[in-house]
Amino acid sequence: MDLKSKIRVIPDFPKEGISFKDITTLLSDKDAFAETIEVLADAVKGYDFDYIAGIEARGFIIGAPLAIKLNKGFLPIRKPGKLPGKVIQESYDLEYGSNTIEMDSEALKPGDRVVILDDLLATGGTAVAATKLVESTGAVVAAVGFFVELTELKGMEMLSDYETFSVLKYDK
Amino acid sequence: MDLKSKIRVIPDFPKEGISFKDITTLLSDKDAFAETIEVLADAVKGYDFDYIAGIEARGFIIGAPLAIKLNKGFLPIRKPGKLPGKVIQESYDLEYGSNTIEMDSEALKPGDRVVILDDLLATGGTAVAATKLVESTGAVVAAVGFFVELTELKGMEMLSDYETFSVLKYDK
Repeated sequence: MDLKSKIRVIPDFPKEGISFKDITTLLSDKDAFAETIEVLADAVKGYDFDYIAGIEARGFIIGAPLAIKLNKGFLPIRKPGKLPGKVIQESYDLEYGSNTIEMDSEALKPGDRVVILDDLLATGGTAVAATKLVESTGAVVAAVGFFVELTELKGMEMLSDYETFSVLKYDK
Repeated sequence: MDLKSKIRVIPDFPKEGISFKDITTLLSDKDAFAETIEVLADAVKGYDFDYIAGIEARGFIIGAPLAIKLNKGFLPIRKPGKLPGKVIQESYDLEYGSNTIEMDSEALKPGDRVVILDDLLATGGTAVAATKLVESTGAVVAAVGFFVELTELKGMEMLSDYETFSVLKYDK
């Protein structure tokens, strides 16, 4: 199946000049969604890991089914204030301002192996922060993966210390 | 498996007097997470439906794997401003103020059958708004379900016009 044909491209969202890759249309197509999880399962099959860490919120939609399919635990990496237990957090710079992500402080122990997953790789800031969160617990990043990669933004260069993968590549 | 034993109860979150049922600990336990999706699949097996609509954000974590397991489409019901396409929205009152949820306006067509799923039922305001969103498209709510139900808050009474289910019940 041509999964790219199931993705809706929305011009000038969230701001002018950005061509947004909207997976809503793919998720609602049961066969396209099923194949998305199949290809992600195929992409991670060479890695040894215990957990999938999904980044809020679209990372939950692809990460949780992948965890179930492969019988792994699921770790939500969330926006600030959402997780009720003790958290660890990591901030990163944006073009204007900064963002923070959080993870439960007790979810991982040293030596645990984690695949970090998000729906889309742009500049890589969120993913790099997620690797720092995981490593701050003593756990190991087995790989960092994405369903969609915007190659022009060179986010993979930020992740050159890690095993990485992406399924669909867009050059703009 | 006693799934309740995998849920962490956090007193006084998000505010004093509330005893928060935290599924983070369940999600990270691969066998407990797998069994959660199994029991949800069992809970919906009597309904005829095409889509699972999951409510942001924890509804994504249980709804997306359930959609994949049962080969259904997945519809994200989101907080305002998150969906890039044309949306429909529904607001509902809270104790102080109000909340709004959104769905893609083109995701459903008349006659489509939808199971609405969230991780937790409290007073039911979000779930009722979700039924209105779905029905405004001409689609049919096949059932409304929850992983955890806080029975003391009587949210199920708000949903008495619908088929409903919940897996774990807490009386306080």
